[in-house]
Amino acid sequence: MKRILLTISYNGHEYSGWQKQKEERTVQGEIEQAFLKTTGQEIEIFGSGRTDAGVHAFAQTAHFDLESPIPVEKIADILNGALPPDIRITKAEEVAPDFHARFSIKKKTYVYYVLNTDKTSPFDAYRYGVIKKHLDEKKMQEVGNLLEGEHNFRGFCSAQTSATDFVRKIFKIKVDRLSKQLIAIKVCGNGFLYNMVRIIVGTMVDYALDKITIDDVKKALFEQDRSCAGQTMPPDGLYLLKTEY
Amino acid sequence: MKRILLTISYNGHEYSGWQKQKEERTVQGEIEQAFLKTTGQEIEIFGSGRTDAGVHAFAQTAHFDLESPIPVEKIADILNGALPPDIRITKAEEVAPDFHARFSIKKKTYVYYVLNTDKTSPFDAYRYGVIKKHLDEKKMQEVGNLLEGEHNFRGFCSAQTSATDFVRKIFKIKVDRLSKQLIAIKVCGNGFLYNMVRIIVGTMVDYALDKITIDDVKKALFEQDRSCAGQTMPPDGLYLLKTEY
Repeated sequence: MKRILLTISYNGHEYSGWQKQKEERTVQGEIEQAFLKTTGQEIEIFGSGRTDAGVHAFAQTAHFDLESPIPVEKIADILNGALPPDIRITKAEEVAPDFHARFSIKKKTYVYYVLNTDKTSPFDAYRYGVIKKHLDEKKMQEVGNLLEGEHNFRGFCSAQTSATDFVRKIFKIKVDRLSKQLIAIKVCGNGFLYNMVRIIVGTMVDYALDKITIDDVKKALFEQDRSCAGQTMPPDGLYLLKTEY
Repeated sequence: MKRILLTISYNGHEYSGWQKQKEERTVQGEIEQAFLKTTGQEIEIFGSGRTDAGVHAFAQTAHFDLESPIPVEKIADILNGALPPDIRITKAEEVAPDFHARFSIKKKTYVYYVLNTDKTSPFDAYRYGVIKKHLDEKKMQEVGNLLEGEHNFRGFCSAQTSATDFVRKIFKIKVDRLSKQLIAIKVCGNGFLYNMVRIIVGTMVDYALDKITIDDVKKALFEQDRSCAGQTMPPDGLYLLKTEY
């Protein structure tokens, strides 16, 4: 038995998220099915965490236990041959038997792309959060600076969460205007609550659009008042960028 | 009553083609529905031609007759507000009452994008025809040169066609390697048969891969023998680039 760590890139638009569900197409489900189809072995893969419906990944990580005598260096090609083209295994490597894709994680980085334009192309659809009015990225960074550090992020979490511990540490938030029309928001932390990155970005956007004040943001953070934070941005612009162990 | 010409860009991946069908999501159907929803007027739009399921357009054109007192310059915004993000109206203009998007057409240009790599990204999915083995674009252009001019293209047409006249004129075929991984094939003609561009590109690809000879291509062209031409490339790489009136 070998424990294998997969690195996976996917366009999440056509999936009901990462986590396996009956009757729904999910990324985890597709990978497990592809492995069963090509090797005959039933596996359960453990992701670094869930991504929601419509959320993408440049590099999600997940482990599973390999029982078949398949060479590790063939696993990516075998799976890619059976997977749909919007899910790609970019790496497969052997890890220690006590490694766990979720529990061994130290840092996770998401990037959210905001397309800041009133003219979108059909080929941009479902890949960005779109904001038509011009956004001041310096105001967005102000919110980012406020949120860095260890805090109770209950005010930046969907009410539908099952979490009980809301304390997370954000190592860094960086807002960059990559072009006239494109803003990237990178958020690196030790873990994230349900919808947390989408609410952080929505709070930046709503503050930049003067829909909320910096005092509202502080209330959301220090009084854990979700109603003071900004909108939940759509999943389309959110990408899991990397996991660090 | 005003006759209006729309220019439309769409990502065809999630549609069963251009032409309206019961029970299927189509581009024509979405636009007619969006107009009905926003203006209350039922319209029928006439495209420059059909595009098949999964085929894209940078600039499809279609006309309809406007009865409501809506200013022409507002039509694009009104429709875009109600259309899904993978269909965008890029222009709406008044044309002469006898103008017909299909019958007035003089030239139509398609571009087919071949991604020539064995490593694809999930974000490339459904946007390119993928060929893993290296293609010699000069050999592809040889096929293009042979096909230019007025010919009976029955050998480059799906058997499922309802056409009876197979003569079409190809003004120009141009193969360009845009980058190490990307080849663009532009085909400009006075009209196209069912699957014609996809079979032309498939013939170029199969010739470049030495699966067929130049004599096979000649047989397909001069003896109208479909079995001598190449594969039908998938719709994913095909884009209607422009129509000229």
